[in-house]
Order: sequence, then C-alpha cells, then structure tokens
Amino acid sequence: MLIDQVMDKCRELDSSVMVGIDPRADRIPTYLLDSAMARYGESERARAAAFLDFGKMVINAVEGVAVFVKPQLAYFETEGSAGVSAYAEVVRFAKERGLFVVADAKRGDIGATSSAYARAFLGSGSLAADFVTVNPYLGSDCVKEFLKYVDEEDKGVFVLVKTSNPSSSELQDLVERESGKKIYEIVAEYVERESAKRVGKCGYSSVGAVVGATYPEELRALRKTMKTVPFLVPGYGAQGGGAKDVVSAYVDGKGAFINSSRGIIYAQEEGCSDSEAIRRAAINMRDSIRNFL
Amino acid sequence: MLIDQVMDKCRELDSSVMVGIDPRADRIPTYLLDSAMARYGESERARAAAFLDFGKMVINAVEGVAVFVKPQLAYFETEGSAGVSAYAEVVRFAKERGLFVVADAKRGDIGATSSAYARAFLGSGSLAADFVTVNPYLGSDCVKEFLKYVDEEDKGVFVLVKTSNPSSSELQDLVERESGKKIYEIVAEYVERESAKRVGKCGYSSVGAVVGATYPEELRALRKTMKTVPFLVPGYGAQGGGAKDVVSAYVDGKGAFINSSRGIIYAQEEGCSDSEAIRRAAINMRDSIRNFL
Repeated sequence: MLIDQVMDKCRELDSSVMVGIDPRADRIPTYLLDSAMARYGESERARAAAFLDFGKMVINAVEGVAVFVKPQLAYFETEGSAGVSAYAEVVRFAKERGLFVVADAKRGDIGATSSAYARAFLGSGSLAADFVTVNPYLGSDCVKEFLKYVDEEDKGVFVLVKTSNPSSSELQDLVERESGKKIYEIVAEYVERESAKRVGKCGYSSVGAVVGATYPEELRALRKTMKTVPFLVPGYGAQGGGAKDVVSAYVDGKGAFINSSRGIIYAQEEGCSDSEAIRRAAINMRDSIRNFL
Repeated sequence: MLIDQVMDKCRELDSSVMVGIDPRADRIPTYLLDSAMARYGESERARAAAFLDFGKMVINAVEGVAVFVKPQLAYFETEGSAGVSAYAEVVRFAKERGLFVVADAKRGDIGATSSAYARAFLGSGSLAADFVTVNPYLGSDCVKEFLKYVDEEDKGVFVLVKTSNPSSSELQDLVERESGKKIYEIVAEYVERESAKRVGKCGYSSVGAVVGATYPEELRALRKTMKTVPFLVPGYGAQGGGAKDVVSAYVDGKGAFINSSRGIIYAQEEGCSDSEAIRRAAINMRDSIRNFL
C-alpha cells in the first residue's frame, strides 16, 4: 500500500520532510529566468521553462533529505498550459528520483466533476501524482470520487481539515449546534472514518488530512481523535510554525509529514550556491524536527 | 463594470442561459475523436484536440442564445497540459464570439496561493476568463485575493454558497450554534457584504454566488437576503432542476444566470445534427425560463 511505502521511506531517511514547490517569477533565481527568456522571450513559455528548471534544482537539492515534494498547481497555472506542462515534468522528475509527490491542487466539485479531477491527478495521465489535496466543502460525494483511486489504484488523498492560514477559523472553527463540535472536527471525523477502513501495515491509511502547524493546539487535539490518518502539516517556516509546534502531529515518531515551501526553496546563504542553500535548509528542518521527536 | 455589461447582454438576448462545457471522451461526438486520433494517435493531445473542436461546436451552436459559457477545468485537466491548452483556446474563442466566460475551477487556497490562482484565472494570462468560481472553505483571506481582480481589473467571481450536489448539505447545512444559521447562510452573508460594496448601475455587483437549482427553497430564501449578488444557478436539466425551481433566483427578471451542461451539450435529436440539437436544447431552456418569468 502506498502509505506503507511512504513510511518505509521515512524510516530509511529518518525524515518526514515535505518540500513545497511554489515557483514565482519574482522569487526564483534570476539566471533561470534570464536563460529561459533568452530562448523564448518574455512569455508564459519562458517563465514555465524557468519554473521547470527551478523545480528540478529543488528536487536535486532535497533528494535524500525530503520524503515528498508538493508542487502547488496555482503557481504553475499562472503560466497557462506551458506552466501546467512544467508541473507535469516536475512530477515525473520527482518520481524518477524516488520522491513521493503530492499534487497540491485543493480540488473538489460535484460527483461527476470530482471524478474527472480524481482521474486527472490520481489516474494514469500526465498530471497524475501519488497524492492530491481535496477540499471538503461539497461533502462526501465529492471526496468519494478520490477515494476510488485510493482503493483501486493505490493512490492517496489529503483532505483539508484545519488549514494553516489566518482566516481558516472563519468557517472551519464555527461550532455546530447539535454536537458542539467545530466544522473542522466534523470533517476530521469523516476523514478518520474513511481512513479506518483502509489501514495498511504501518497503522495508517493513504487517506490523510491537512492540519496546519500554525494551530498547534488543534493539531494536538486532532491527533488524539484521528488515529489512522496521516497528517500533511503545512505552515512550517515562513508561515510561522516551528518544530515544537508540529511534534504533537506524530505518534511514536510516525504519522506526519511536515511541509515547508518558501522557507526552503527560497533559502539563501552567504557564500553558498542556491542549490546548497536549499539543501541546507531542508537538512536543518529535518534535524530540528528530529531533535524534538 | 463587468456585471453591467453582462446584464445588458441578458436584456439584448432576453436570456440568462449559461452553457457548461464539460467535454468527456466517452460522450462527445465520435467523429471529433476519430478525426483527432487520426492526426495524433490515442493520446492526451488527440483528446484535447477533440475537446477543443467540441468546445467550438458548442460555442457556435449557442451564440446568440446563451449569455455565458462555463468551461469546467476538471474535464480539460484529465488530458494534461494539452487539455489545459484546449481550455485556453475555448475561452479565447468564446470571448471572440461575445460570450462571457466563467472558468469553473472552484479554486481556493491560503492568501499567497489564492493570489496566484486569481492571477491565473482573472489576470492577463492565457487561462484568464471573465469570472471564476471560488471555494470558501479557507475563509476570507482566500476570497480577498480574487476580489482584488474584481476591484482592479473589472473581473468577477462566483463564490460557492449552496452547491447543487446531493451531499452538499453535509457540511453546508450544518447549523452554527451562536447564530442559529447554517454554514451556507453565513457564507452568503459574507458574499452579500462584499458584493454590496461593489454594486454597479444594474443594481448587482460582479461578486456572485453559486446556489444550486436542486434546492429551490434555499434558493428562494437566499435571494431574499442577498440583494446585490448575482446568482450562478447550476443543477438545471441533467441534475434535476427545472424552470419553476429557478424562477425565485430572479428579481424582476434579473440577477440570475442558469447553467446547464450535460442537458445541452450532449443533447441529441432524431434527424438533427449535433450542432442543431445543442442549439435547440439551449433555445428550449431559454424559452422555458422566459415563460416562468
């Protein structure tokens, strides 16, 4: 089962680091953009080519340190179909290097349409990754279509439960009248139910949850009730979460994958190539978390 | 303002029909696929080419009847970057024909990432449409990034409020303890507040809401509290909504756009070309709604 392979890799590398690949034309190394613009002029195609080069640079730099990469579709989509093509190449390149890939797409729609999204991101086409992030606002007939790919194609999902952003409380923390539970807790229970039906040898399933490092209390409480659900924990680093905030996402050092995007991919260090700076930032993150576990 | 132009077009055509473009390889006319596969073999590129031809066929067929087309990203994404390129061409072609375009993408993420999605779908790049659909699960700092394009670029959004699918009630209908309001009503209030700040000459803003035709009671109630918000009403036709279900979305014959996808684009009629059948289905829908208004 996919999640068992992931956990094996975590043990092998003694790491649970996920690196978010969020390429932005105003932040990637200028020499990548200059080189692409020399070939293609100032265009979506040029920026997409630079994004691909950047993605490969990040993957090469974090290989052996990170377990996952998480390309964020939004950034690739800013450059149109050329950007989406670069995303597909990033996914392919990462898989070749033995990294697991989360398509951070936060998709979700009515059943028939969710089925198309699930096929796009978990099927056999060029955009398919190992895992995809899913938005639960439309309810279970949305999520169900993705679960089919968990059951039939050994893929995985991470359902948004409690997101890392400042305004996540506006909807997710509203308290439901009958049960006294918050919305995100109700989503969490649904995710745990679906996960518990699909547990692998490692004690977890490939049905995960997104729970932000920026809400450590909620993270701690959710881990108590979600026993079989692996956590994708965003918000480490640039968003303000630290190693002590994420430690409660683990049980016996297992069960969580901690994502940093900007804090790693845009790391810069005096007297150090961009590649080396990225690798060092990933190693620092891995070691900080190790020390707390 | 965009919404004023849309309302002018509605008056000119005496129509508020939106046609969803959901191309599926197993449902589009086989001659389109055969022709594309003769050129490109059995590939994403071939299916994407057929999707583009199909999109153009639909646009040609509904021109002068529909006000909007609504290409659904999920279906294009099943064919990878080639599919996304076909989506971009469909948008371009529709705009040339004077149709307004809603990118049905249901995007939403943390602020920085939502900003990238907003730029992709409402900026000046190749994927940009007139409106985009937005998922509110992450709260206002997600939606805000899209509103910047409403304010600065005269674009529009439709925020998911009450969706048309059977399981939409699972999360959206939960009752919040303090206010006694349902989650979708709380989202609706937020959308109305943002909309009321941006009203155009027509009395509506370019900040719209998605409210399903399959929940006519909720639709009626929401229209009473959402006075400045244009409604995108999905669920007409194949999903079970009829003209009598959507009439309460209008005030004095204005303020709602009714979408049908499968019921129009896959219409077939004895002794009738596919194009003609699509056009007739759109005309029937327009006239059914007219009769009820």
